[in-house]
Amino acid sequence: MMKVAIFGASGYTGQELTRILLGHPEVKLVAVTSRRFAGQPVTEVFPSLHGLTSLKYQNATPAKISNICDIVFLALPHGVSMKIAPEFIGAGKKVIDLSADYRLRDLKTYETWYGKHSSAKFIKDAVYGIPELYRQKIKKTKFIANPGCYPTSIILGLAPALKKKLIDVSTIIADSASGVSGAGREPQTGSLFCEVDGGFKAYKVGKHRHLPEIEQELNALAGKKFAISFTPHLLPVKRGILSTIYATLKKNISLSELHSLYSSFYAEEKFVRICPAGIYPNISSVCGSNYCDIGLAVDLRTKKVIIITAIDNLIKGAAGQAVQNMNIICGFKEDAGLQAAPLYP
Amino acid sequence: MMKVAIFGASGYTGQELTRILLGHPEVKLVAVTSRRFAGQPVTEVFPSLHGLTSLKYQNATPAKISNICDIVFLALPHGVSMKIAPEFIGAGKKVIDLSADYRLRDLKTYETWYGKHSSAKFIKDAVYGIPELYRQKIKKTKFIANPGCYPTSIILGLAPALKKKLIDVSTIIADSASGVSGAGREPQTGSLFCEVDGGFKAYKVGKHRHLPEIEQELNALAGKKFAISFTPHLLPVKRGILSTIYATLKKNISLSELHSLYSSFYAEEKFVRICPAGIYPNISSVCGSNYCDIGLAVDLRTKKVIIITAIDNLIKGAAGQAVQNMNIICGFKEDAGLQAAPLYP
Amino acid sequence: MMKVAIFGASGYTGQELTRILLGHPEVKLVAVTSRRFAGQPVTEVFPSLHGLTSLKYQNATPAKISNICDIVFLALPHGVSMKIAPEFIGAGKKVIDLSADYRLRDLKTYETWYGKHSSAKFIKDAVYGIPELYRQKIKKTKFIANPGCYPTSIILGLAPALKKKLIDVSTIIADSASGVSGAGREPQTGSLFCEVDGGFKAYKVGKHRHLPEIEQELNALAGKKFAISFTPHLLPVKRGILSTIYATLKKNISLSELHSLYSSFYAEEKFVRICPAGIYPNISSVCGSNYCDIGLAVDLRTKKVIIITAIDNLIKGAAGQAVQNMNIICGFKEDAGLQAAPLYP
Amino acid sequence: MMKVAIFGASGYTGQELTRILLGHPEVKLVAVTSRRFAGQPVTEVFPSLHGLTSLKYQNATPAKISNICDIVFLALPHGVSMKIAPEFIGAGKKVIDLSADYRLRDLKTYETWYGKHSSAKFIKDAVYGIPELYRQKIKKTKFIANPGCYPTSIILGLAPALKKKLIDVSTIIADSASGVSGAGREPQTGSLFCEVDGGFKAYKVGKHRHLPEIEQELNALAGKKFAISFTPHLLPVKRGILSTIYATLKKNISLSELHSLYSSFYAEEKFVRICPAGIYPNISSVCGSNYCDIGLAVDLRTKKVIIITAIDNLIKGAAGQAVQNMNIICGFKEDAGLQAAPLYP
Repeated sequence: MMKVAIFGASGYTGQELTRILLGHPEVKLVAVTSRRFAGQPVTEVFPSLHGLTSLKYQNATPAKISNICDIVFLALPHGVSMKIAPEFIGAGKKVIDLSADYRLRDLKTYETWYGKHSSAKFIKDAVYGIPELYRQKIKKTKFIANPGCYPTSIILGLAPALKKKLIDVSTIIADSASGVSGAGREPQTGSLFCEVDGGFKAYKVGKHRHLPEIEQELNALAGKKFAISFTPHLLPVKRGILSTIYATLKKNISLSELHSLYSSFYAEEKFVRICPAGIYPNISSVCGSNYCDIGLAVDLRTKKVIIITAIDNLIKGAAGQAVQNMNIICGFKEDAGLQAAPLYP
Repeated sequence: MMKVAIFGASGYTGQELTRILLGHPEVKLVAVTSRRFAGQPVTEVFPSLHGLTSLKYQNATPAKISNICDIVFLALPHGVSMKIAPEFIGAGKKVIDLSADYRLRDLKTYETWYGKHSSAKFIKDAVYGIPELYRQKIKKTKFIANPGCYPTSIILGLAPALKKKLIDVSTIIADSASGVSGAGREPQTGSLFCEVDGGFKAYKVGKHRHLPEIEQELNALAGKKFAISFTPHLLPVKRGILSTIYATLKKNISLSELHSLYSSFYAEEKFVRICPAGIYPNISSVCGSNYCDIGLAVDLRTKKVIIITAIDNLIKGAAGQAVQNMNIICGFKEDAGLQAAPLYP
Repeated sequence: MMKVAIFGASGYTGQELTRILLGHPEVKLVAVTSRRFAGQPVTEVFPSLHGLTSLKYQNATPAKISNICDIVFLALPHGVSMKIAPEFIGAGKKVIDLSADYRLRDLKTYETWYGKHSSAKFIKDAVYGIPELYRQKIKKTKFIANPGCYPTSIILGLAPALKKKLIDVSTIIADSASGVSGAGREPQTGSLFCEVDGGFKAYKVGKHRHLPEIEQELNALAGKKFAISFTPHLLPVKRGILSTIYATLKKNISLSELHSLYSSFYAEEKFVRICPAGIYPNISSVCGSNYCDIGLAVDLRTKKVIIITAIDNLIKGAAGQAVQNMNIICGFKEDAGLQAAPLYP
Repeated sequence: MMKVAIFGASGYTGQELTRILLGHPEVKLVAVTSRRFAGQPVTEVFPSLHGLTSLKYQNATPAKISNICDIVFLALPHGVSMKIAPEFIGAGKKVIDLSADYRLRDLKTYETWYGKHSSAKFIKDAVYGIPELYRQKIKKTKFIANPGCYPTSIILGLAPALKKKLIDVSTIIADSASGVSGAGREPQTGSLFCEVDGGFKAYKVGKHRHLPEIEQELNALAGKKFAISFTPHLLPVKRGILSTIYATLKKNISLSELHSLYSSFYAEEKFVRICPAGIYPNISSVCGSNYCDIGLAVDLRTKKVIIITAIDNLIKGAAGQAVQNMNIICGFKEDAGLQAAPLYP
């Protein structure tokens, strides 16, 4: 059994990693860290895990954790990961970083959106971890920059259209909506039940930090440079991201052709499901699973394609994809620990 | 006191009309009809109204209701209103129809989207009732085609931009999300709590029946013919519509210029509130009120304007706007019965 | 117009008072205070009130506020009110305190449950403000201890049964559930959307601070001393308290007798509605209103009466009842500013 | 691999069985029936299962299904199961009936609460399937009457207290609250999102059909006849039942003694988790799992014990417990297919 640790395990993503790794057949979770809850049993902070683990949160140094694990997941805020990752990399450990710190290959772009980087020399070593697009690279690396939640939902939705050059890239609009767990577990007014329930709003219009990450990857897929319009919204649900993506078609295509093209593109991918033509995805149909569901529409009146994707932001958008990356790196079955069917209703 | 009646009063829109009219200072609600609940007290079907009315639902003919009222609201499904309205029109009553039956001025368009019309000759007499745009016409009519909920949210959002010719009309995308009350109170699987809660999905992509209505009004505002892309979504909330509207700017404009322009356009309008620059509306901030809140963003990277509007679909999107129209027609204060502040949280 | 101020106006109760008082026909809201939001317009903190007020939150001394108002509402945490109230009392102002600081007539009980009291000498002057039970006393006072939310729901439910000596007081169990707004607007993990949505739990079983207040009032109504069992629960809703109250009958009574007895007891009370026999209240049917709905059941198998009450915790359970008290003190119509029908759905 | 079928598979319980059985390591799901959706693929009705099965719903006779399976689950309404079960029993199949039809050992009681029974002779053969209490009997039977959701939550909560004779059985009150999935997937007004969200209410006070089932089992555990008071409530959540159970102690007991006693009683039970003293369960901490969490309080002021239990009504309250019973009957590991940790948040 491989020994794994989670650095920063008491947020929602950390908890989700904990839950998935405790049920994973090939690894043993040996340590979880948290400054806020140091000394407390995991099950005191997350009673849902009662009976499943006796681990306590530690306030340990990277060096100490590095000594006892083969693989580490960093579920830390950006700006913190960059200080922790180097120790593990230096020790030759497999590192899966769920923060934004090593996702942007251009340092200047990183520093424009996030601030000063303290370990920029490692950026070039990180592989951007969307298995469906970069599996071969992932197999060969020990260092994963695990994608953001919004980017995952948008990149998987657009990849086939971009690779097949179906759309005018200057017209792309991504209108996304996320559940509240994406904002983390830190107490803040905007995440209170009374502020969120019954509400729906856009935020950071055209200014969300996931924008450069999305554009980096879309540009790479298209082989050229362009900007997109991206508007995130806050949904009154716990989990899920739905992205409704609009683009103008370069030439007409029927829905059935488009559907075939997407189905072929992802034919070998267990975790991408193309909805039947005329059916659109629902975040509640992927909740609790590592699936990305994709629905398609063609609007010939306006010559637009509409691509709609749904993921569970904590799973395919974070912890699940991280485990999928670990599975590939370690040569496990790619769906090990990730076989849960969506929990519906 | 004017005497008013509601034909088809036991759905959510009918209930909302009932609630508003019971609190209206200038009218007396004299009759409510419902086939399904005929004979039952209103308060048995809606215990929230206990103590506020002793009316019972009647299964009465239009002729009977027409005899006892000055004004009638038709809160009926499309296809039914067209059979009921003529009786009231013939009797010289003021008629406010909340169905789609008299909204589309082009009969052929109506019949393409909704089916055969049985009283098409009255279409030309109906005034499309958005007071902020058509107040003068409304003052002179006795017959209102009360706008749809999605159309209200989109038309109010785009009117200034279209009138001022700021945008390339061929690029308009309206991405909207509605609360479940928009689907009515008839039992159906798709409106069950377990199907909706925790979910979010698009539906009828590019095919919603509100599309021709939206385009009719946007074309009129722009003075030319064009199509838009419209995608409705279902939100896990009871009330509210948020529309996020995208369009390419014809030339650059700063956010502050845009904000001034919108503020001027709606300067005299009590029920339209322009959010401060940088602030976006939330459906929970208009819930229970007749307001339409509008937020604005300019994305110079993609040369797009993003206009975001929020309404309560049952009030400004239906019953409230209907009462606002009645107030204008009858010469009441325009906000009579509509002064409730939003209920937050 | 009377001039009113709200001390501590930026929490949920303070906001609710602001909303109600802005729409009140007999008073003018002249000042609102908040340390956290000092200097900010109310509408920046609560965009729902946009267009309804230009007030800013002040960080003002009681002396300063006292100078400019006739009536003050204290929407402060316990322990803070006791330091602020004396200034207003000394200046001869009408004071309506929404904290717990002057509700418990026995100082020792107060200090056991809440800690040291710094202005205990005023306790004897405060009238416990449930208008349905203490209207005559309220008329003559200038100082109201406004009841807690759980106590209001339980006391109104039990008053007729206790006054008529129907039940064995040693058997009373109050099982209550509250919406999250009862926990206030301070950021805390337990009030986050993700912690609350989809959940339901009991808390502070037999130990909630409202317990001595409930027992004080129930004992007074029964004319003897006894303890009750009280278990609060947290509901995944924004507003509302439902209390399901159990007690053993001293002798058999039919449901229709019980119903008559309750109906008579509250016959003159606009804000108490007795549900028809066989119908039980729902918090969503009082949401946004000052009503307390009461439903009744008799279980002859176990010789128990079950009394179920529903209120909106922010209105009848706090701000609405406070305004009702103000109306009585000032000789306004008792329902002035409180006429809103429940917002359903 | 054992071959299993589900009769009546298109409701929420049927879907949950489908989901669990598709992931079960020891069985193969060979048929699912539904009259309403006959001919449709399961994944069309439940897109969450896309990619996991190619089964279609059949409108097949019991005889036909009986031919192809070793085990059948009946997820049918009461009154229907009684007509279907005999065919399978006669054919020697293992039958797990999730309806109420064979739960009540006294025919007269059954007919009083549910109506005429058409296959009463089989009642005596059914074992009431709570594994924690009746494992030995379950091992030896082929016919399970799978318990109701409310009964499971109440019986597991009271079993230790009754067996140890801690409480005065004449004082038991069970105050329960259930998520909406308990009402099934048939469209009905009362289960609509707009009727449920933001609401909370009691229903069928003292008259719910689960009452005789609860009393039958509690009486058996206590070895004497008594009635309890039971009030169910409807929660605005999809899944979960919380039961708050009150009873008067026969003699004082400390919380820590009570906690030890419960911990010992369920020491060998994987699916019952006793919360640490002072901690109460939350339905969201068992959601998606087969756990029953139990929290305890002692209120010496009123000499009461308060026992609070939480289950996922679709899993431990229905499909999960049914699979647990199957596992025992078939000699599989008792947690086979049931190892999912709760999905939190």
